[in-house]
Amino acid sequence: MPKYVYRFEEGNKDQKDLLGGKGANLAEMNKLGLPVPPGFTITTDACRAYLKDNKVPEEMTVQVTKALREVEDAVGRQLGAADDPLLVSVRSGAKFSMPGMMETVLNVGLNDKSVEGLAKIANNDRFAWDSYRRLIQMFGKTVQDIDGDLFSDALDNMKKIRGVKLDTDLNTSDLKELTAQFKEIVATETGKPFPQEPRVQLDMAIEAVFRSWNSERAQIYRRRERIPHNLGTAVNIVTMVFGNMGDDSGTGVSFTRDPSTGRPGVYGDILMNAQGEDVVAGIRNTETLKDLERHDKKSYDELIEIMRRLETHYQDMCDLEFTIERGKLWMLQVRVGKRTAAAAFRIATQLVDEGLITTDEALTRVTGEQLQNLMFPMFDDASKPQPFTKGMPASPGAAVGKIVFDNDAAEASANAGVPCILVRRETNPDDLRGMVAAAGVLTSRGGKTSHAAVVARGMGKTAVVGAETIVVDQAARTMTVGDQVLEEGTEISIDGGTGEIFLGAVPVKDSPVTTYLAQGLDAGLAAADNDDDKDLIRSVDRIMTHADRVRKLLVRTNADTPTDTQRALEFGAEGIGLCRTEHMFLGDRRPYVERLILSPEGSKERQDALDALEPLQKGDFKEMLKIMDGKHMTVRLIDPPLHEFLPDLVTLEVKDAVTRAKGETPSEADLHMLAAVRRMHEANPMLGLRGVRLGIYLPGLFKMQMRALVEAACELKADGMDPQPEIMVPLIGSIRELQIVRDEAEDVIKTTQEKFGVKFDIPVGCMIELPRAAMTAETIAKEADFFSFGTNDLTQTTWGFSRDDVEGVFFPQYIEAGIFGVSPFESIDTHGVGRVVAEGVKRGRSTKPEMPMGVCGEHGGDPISIHFFHRVGLNYVSCSPFRVPVARLEAGRAAVEEKAWDDSATDGLDKTA
Amino acid sequence: MPKYVYRFEEGNKDQKDLLGGKGANLAEMNKLGLPVPPGFTITTDACRAYLKDNKVPEEMTVQVTKALREVEDAVGRQLGAADDPLLVSVRSGAKFSMPGMMETVLNVGLNDKSVEGLAKIANNDRFAWDSYRRLIQMFGKTVQDIDGDLFSDALDNMKKIRGVKLDTDLNTSDLKELTAQFKEIVATETGKPFPQEPRVQLDMAIEAVFRSWNSERAQIYRRRERIPHNLGTAVNIVTMVFGNMGDDSGTGVSFTRDPSTGRPGVYGDILMNAQGEDVVAGIRNTETLKDLERHDKKSYDELIEIMRRLETHYQDMCDLEFTIERGKLWMLQVRVGKRTAAAAFRIATQLVDEGLITTDEALTRVTGEQLQNLMFPMFDDASKPQPFTKGMPASPGAAVGKIVFDNDAAEASANAGVPCILVRRETNPDDLRGMVAAAGVLTSRGGKTSHAAVVARGMGKTAVVGAETIVVDQAARTMTVGDQVLEEGTEISIDGGTGEIFLGAVPVKDSPVTTYLAQGLDAGLAAADNDDDKDLIRSVDRIMTHADRVRKLLVRTNADTPTDTQRALEFGAEGIGLCRTEHMFLGDRRPYVERLILSPEGSKERQDALDALEPLQKGDFKEMLKIMDGKHMTVRLIDPPLHEFLPDLVTLEVKDAVTRAKGETPSEADLHMLAAVRRMHEANPMLGLRGVRLGIYLPGLFKMQMRALVEAACELKADGMDPQPEIMVPLIGSIRELQIVRDEAEDVIKTTQEKFGVKFDIPVGCMIELPRAAMTAETIAKEADFFSFGTNDLTQTTWGFSRDDVEGVFFPQYIEAGIFGVSPFESIDTHGVGRVVAEGVKRGRSTKPEMPMGVCGEHGGDPISIHFFHRVGLNYVSCSPFRVPVARLEAGRAAVEEKAWDDSATDGLDKTA
Repeated sequence: MPKYVYRFEEGNKDQKDLLGGKGANLAEMNKLGLPVPPGFTITTDACRAYLKDNKVPEEMTVQVTKALREVEDAVGRQLGAADDPLLVSVRSGAKFSMPGMMETVLNVGLNDKSVEGLAKIANNDRFAWDSYRRLIQMFGKTVQDIDGDLFSDALDNMKKIRGVKLDTDLNTSDLKELTAQFKEIVATETGKPFPQEPRVQLDMAIEAVFRSWNSERAQIYRRRERIPHNLGTAVNIVTMVFGNMGDDSGTGVSFTRDPSTGRPGVYGDILMNAQGEDVVAGIRNTETLKDLERHDKKSYDELIEIMRRLETHYQDMCDLEFTIERGKLWMLQVRVGKRTAAAAFRIATQLVDEGLITTDEALTRVTGEQLQNLMFPMFDDASKPQPFTKGMPASPGAAVGKIVFDNDAAEASANAGVPCILVRRETNPDDLRGMVAAAGVLTSRGGKTSHAAVVARGMGKTAVVGAETIVVDQAARTMTVGDQVLEEGTEISIDGGTGEIFLGAVPVKDSPVTTYLAQGLDAGLAAADNDDDKDLIRSVDRIMTHADRVRKLLVRTNADTPTDTQRALEFGAEGIGLCRTEHMFLGDRRPYVERLILSPEGSKERQDALDALEPLQKGDFKEMLKIMDGKHMTVRLIDPPLHEFLPDLVTLEVKDAVTRAKGETPSEADLHMLAAVRRMHEANPMLGLRGVRLGIYLPGLFKMQMRALVEAACELKADGMDPQPEIMVPLIGSIRELQIVRDEAEDVIKTTQEKFGVKFDIPVGCMIELPRAAMTAETIAKEADFFSFGTNDLTQTTWGFSRDDVEGVFFPQYIEAGIFGVSPFESIDTHGVGRVVAEGVKRGRSTKPEMPMGVCGEHGGDPISIHFFHRVGLNYVSCSPFRVPVARLEAGRAAVEEKAWDDSATDGLDKTA
Repeated sequence: MPKYVYRFEEGNKDQKDLLGGKGANLAEMNKLGLPVPPGFTITTDACRAYLKDNKVPEEMTVQVTKALREVEDAVGRQLGAADDPLLVSVRSGAKFSMPGMMETVLNVGLNDKSVEGLAKIANNDRFAWDSYRRLIQMFGKTVQDIDGDLFSDALDNMKKIRGVKLDTDLNTSDLKELTAQFKEIVATETGKPFPQEPRVQLDMAIEAVFRSWNSERAQIYRRRERIPHNLGTAVNIVTMVFGNMGDDSGTGVSFTRDPSTGRPGVYGDILMNAQGEDVVAGIRNTETLKDLERHDKKSYDELIEIMRRLETHYQDMCDLEFTIERGKLWMLQVRVGKRTAAAAFRIATQLVDEGLITTDEALTRVTGEQLQNLMFPMFDDASKPQPFTKGMPASPGAAVGKIVFDNDAAEASANAGVPCILVRRETNPDDLRGMVAAAGVLTSRGGKTSHAAVVARGMGKTAVVGAETIVVDQAARTMTVGDQVLEEGTEISIDGGTGEIFLGAVPVKDSPVTTYLAQGLDAGLAAADNDDDKDLIRSVDRIMTHADRVRKLLVRTNADTPTDTQRALEFGAEGIGLCRTEHMFLGDRRPYVERLILSPEGSKERQDALDALEPLQKGDFKEMLKIMDGKHMTVRLIDPPLHEFLPDLVTLEVKDAVTRAKGETPSEADLHMLAAVRRMHEANPMLGLRGVRLGIYLPGLFKMQMRALVEAACELKADGMDPQPEIMVPLIGSIRELQIVRDEAEDVIKTTQEKFGVKFDIPVGCMIELPRAAMTAETIAKEADFFSFGTNDLTQTTWGFSRDDVEGVFFPQYIEAGIFGVSPFESIDTHGVGRVVAEGVKRGRSTKPEMPMGVCGEHGGDPISIHFFHRVGLNYVSCSPFRVPVARLEAGRAAVEEKAWDDSATDGLDKTA
């Protein structure tokens, strides 16, 4: 007979799969001898069996009976007995927390008789009748699927009749009458009276919790959070305890350390003579945990003792819920507590110092995302006013600017050099231009997976979404909160890390963590204003030092300018993994590039353009090689489609047509340019003439770049420096392409080194950014000294979508539909693109086991992706300078965690798994 | 000691790897006891050793000495002896024929003394001195790397002085003087006299042949033909025999059957008292083989006997070279003969009838390409004039049209409904518009891999290239051959199968083979004008019948219209593998589609547009399902980017700007349309909002299509017919996308079938056309009833290029550089894209071993690709109607050949392999 029911005495915290998080932790506390109200947990197995057959397994019913009787025996009361009834709560509890997504029924066991018994025992009629009407309301709505408005309308009506505002202003007789009305609603809606039999209530409530696993909102939530649909939920049946039985009763939540700052010492909120719901309802102000000592020294001492035991046991900061019923402390929940980024670092090192965890473990307690959040510039607390209002933090950062309401205004403002915040009810693909132009984005609708949130995170743009107090009037060009109306042009500040919105320009200051990361411990400590921050800096330093010690991945940077290069070095970059050269062809140099493209092959004009560009390129490279002295600098030959260097076709067509419409004749130069741009125009430039294709198509271009690089390096070498350039060929699909460029490179290297009388190795490698390159990597490896995976392009081709075209258009809808958990451009899609990378690594290493392989592009700085790259066996990641510390930290975490890479990950909803 | 030298007595025809094609066949003839001049072959191993170390292995020298002495003993003469010298030819001979790419040196052994001996023996001074001057010229140029112009200038100069036109007009003393001049050239250029020592000549010639393996032209040829670079060439040393020693001597080539028509009976050309070169030079008209009987009955009878033996031995039509020296027949070469398409079919069935091969073998003797060539309309032989001139056949077909010289003229002509032929010196990407507009393409430059040839084949457009007699004067808009000048607008006809160019419009007739394929044997025989054609029809019928019997791949068709469907059925299609629905949304229906796209989600306009389209779609489907009664019809839901249904952005922008420039105000409608088109504009539509993404983005669209299809099928079913529709979802990247559409499909199918009271299976499957789909196929298979590989899109994404943008732009350059052997859109790139397909098949079958899998798209009709699809285990190919017979034939061949798929194929030049 399968075991479907576990009494709290039987489980433990490692059984989350079977008992859910709540049930496992209740069992664990029981095991520790802590005061947990008697109860039991129905397993996720039972839920799965129920969902499969659409009925409760008979064995489960039998086991519930046995467990229930044991609880009754333990408390000496019987479920719903008329005199001193045992009441229970029936609570969902899945492996992964899904707050608010599934059902809970309280006070199960109350009926027309036991309500009287409860009133007597509690010596409180109002409490008993309020509990009963709550049961009927909750039961009717969630178990019996009755429209909840019917109950709330009746409640509102009663308050209206009684002329009161709050539920708590209703007296016992009001509640008795309301209870009668509620029973009437149930009878009318279901055709049957409200079930009086306590066990029937219990069984129906259990089934309702099972069913709620597949409610639409739960399914959507799981898709978003990538929680598998086949897990099912456990159900916890717990003896009800009441914190509202008088002044010797109360309820509270507490943390074993301050979850906000990480400051040592316990922390919590309590409310005497109240229930958990009252804390949420905010009827009275809560007191601090310390106040409990005054109210109930015995319970306080016991709680402090329990908190210490739990922290020792869980080896981490814990978050607890408890209730005191008539002087008796009951523990209702425990879990490892959520915390802010700063708290995470401080708590991790505190636990090391207290000998509770190792430094390796400390490293796993913080994340790159937390470090990143600590690195953003932030509003200066000292000068921070009260927030004007608040929304959901969607994309971190501190943005200050004038309100604008549409794309045109945003662009006009940006063009005028005035930072602006784009404010919309919600955004859609039409708003992309405005989002690009704005310093930050604020919406009154939508959650963390709304269009605005997804797109802003993708852009690295500060965003606050779903600020529901705000009314946006697009036509009037105002945003209103309460009676305060803000016109377009009003300056506001938004905090993407907290969701706070401020009136006016709040001063922004650099993060002391960033100062530490760039300038070292002393500078970081000096930049910190207060002891909390100084302690934080010390914690970050210890953890970063440890990460650097244990990580196997090298961290390089993507940098195209001396400034970026310098910044990345400060942040700890161990070389340049990607130096793009295309940006070096803009500005003053653009006319040469235009000439290069438009003049015929073999012509003097083309050669002149190449000749003019070469010394400029050489200068670029020399400056960067100097800064990178002794470190690798991987230079990617020019990559983007040529027409990026040419004027826009539409603009030229319009100019031509307008000139002709005016009866004028377009100039020879204009005609020539139009013809050329038409000729070079591509329907899909991302899949067009770019990368190595361009290098082969425009002979001389790659050679010029390579000669500029090699000459720059040779000059420095001759001056006694140690330049370490590497030549990287983009968009390789076939070994033959690489051979052609490599032959040219070897020729340039040989000739130039002979000319300068120096000799040093200059590796020639390639990007692996096309599926074909990965799938034939064992061949390509023969001609490559290194591989650099370009996972951005690889994502585009493996999925067949262009980031520019689709990310803002249908990604939010795709995330909502559960097709992605997160944009595959943010975190590498391990199941799909990751397999292609893994093929490339495996095939490449089959030819050259020791060949260096890395990744460049945005995934190189993404935490999840870094773990993947570690597991798949790359040697380095390369990321933007600002991401270098994140990559160092995550590479360290990956080395410590080093689990097998899970290739069985599934796409979104996998109902058949 | 490695064996580097094989006497002809030692080898056989299966040793082509080691002895090359020529050497292996010479050895084979020797083995058969046929009269082969004594000689030996130096192996490809020796060549590889030489190329590796850049010197001849000593063992080889020793073995050459031994073999040479054996030859000398056999013929009783010594190499270059003064009195009766043995002379030898030194000929390259690789595994794969590389005509004209490597070196040959004749008459090795002649020197100042042996030339006199030869003259005496041959009793012909002129012959001896001409042989000697040829040796010096050939040796100087190919062995000693002397500029060949020095020799030919001296020769021209001599002719000028003597006032003669032809080399043959020079007499003995002229040739003696020329020989002296040639020796002088050698001495001046090399600093040493022409080597007089025969063995030195021989050794130097052997090395030169080795070296010629790596000449630039040989490398380029190998890249084009995908011949591996590491094979090396063998060298054949063969006793010289002379057909020009008098009237009892002669030379000839012959075929064991007519290679042109396939008519039974031997066939050949002879020239008495002549050498092979003379046949090429065309000094005298050749006689037919039959004439030899008259000249030399003994040799004729011997030759006829030899031909019969060789055909029996090789079990195929053979192509022979022979020389008669003073009444003695010598066989110089044999190989399986090249033949026309018609001959291939006829010979194959003849050989079956003669009991020489099985019908399975006959199937492997013909190709889909040959069948395809026989299917093109052709010029009516009866009314075919003399060709005006000739070029290289580059892309088959018969095209008639007026000459045009540029894009604009081509488009103007096409728009006026007048077919035209685009004539250019050579084409480049700028000419694409013109090529699209023209009925055929003719160039005066370039070969079979030139831009014009590659692009025309890709387009299926008739092309003749490299017609070097034509002078194209772009400015004067004329093409000239000799003194005949053709103006633009003159009508010409070009034959892409033969390269012939005719003045005027030559009547075109349907191929009787096509009539046979579409209407059966009787109709085909009736359409054939002559006995050859009737015999051909019978042969084709026998082979096609056998192919259908043995093939494992089903052949379906891509058809979107009733006409195409009907045609494909006639050609033997076993279902529709791809019915595209996008074409059904053009024309009258376009306004609905525009409205569908531009109206807001959930709006009445959008619903109205869907409602208007649904009955039209249903009509389309019903008509086609009727034709396909009882056969599968796979309908792909709408695939292309939405903006294909919207007006062109540039046109709208220009209109708007011009209106404003005129001081007018654009209409509301125009403004609205411009805004909408701007909004929908994508930078890379191929990677944008299309396929399943569109279906999810525009709710209702797929549902409408599915309902139209299912209703059409249900109505037919209710009428007693047997519709077999299948729903195919395009551009799937993730299982979740397919789940969403599948859920909708199942709902539609259930509801509609209930409505009509019918019940039958309607499978729902998907395209596998993104690398991600292939790489996660084991997951996607859970929701798919079938897979159809879309190898066109898969090629685009695996390689990362857009067919439209790159095929005409850099493919010719890429083919020239050896990166492709052929466009990967023509034949599937087995090494890269093929691996992705294989992954998809393997992963898909790991979930559903029996799931039907096929391919739709152009590769489905390509012979090489069909063999790949057979090997990889697909169940069907789907191709355009005209390709159905080709696919049937090739599927049969694949089943008969069934070799392991060679995954070791390399990309282009693989010098390190």
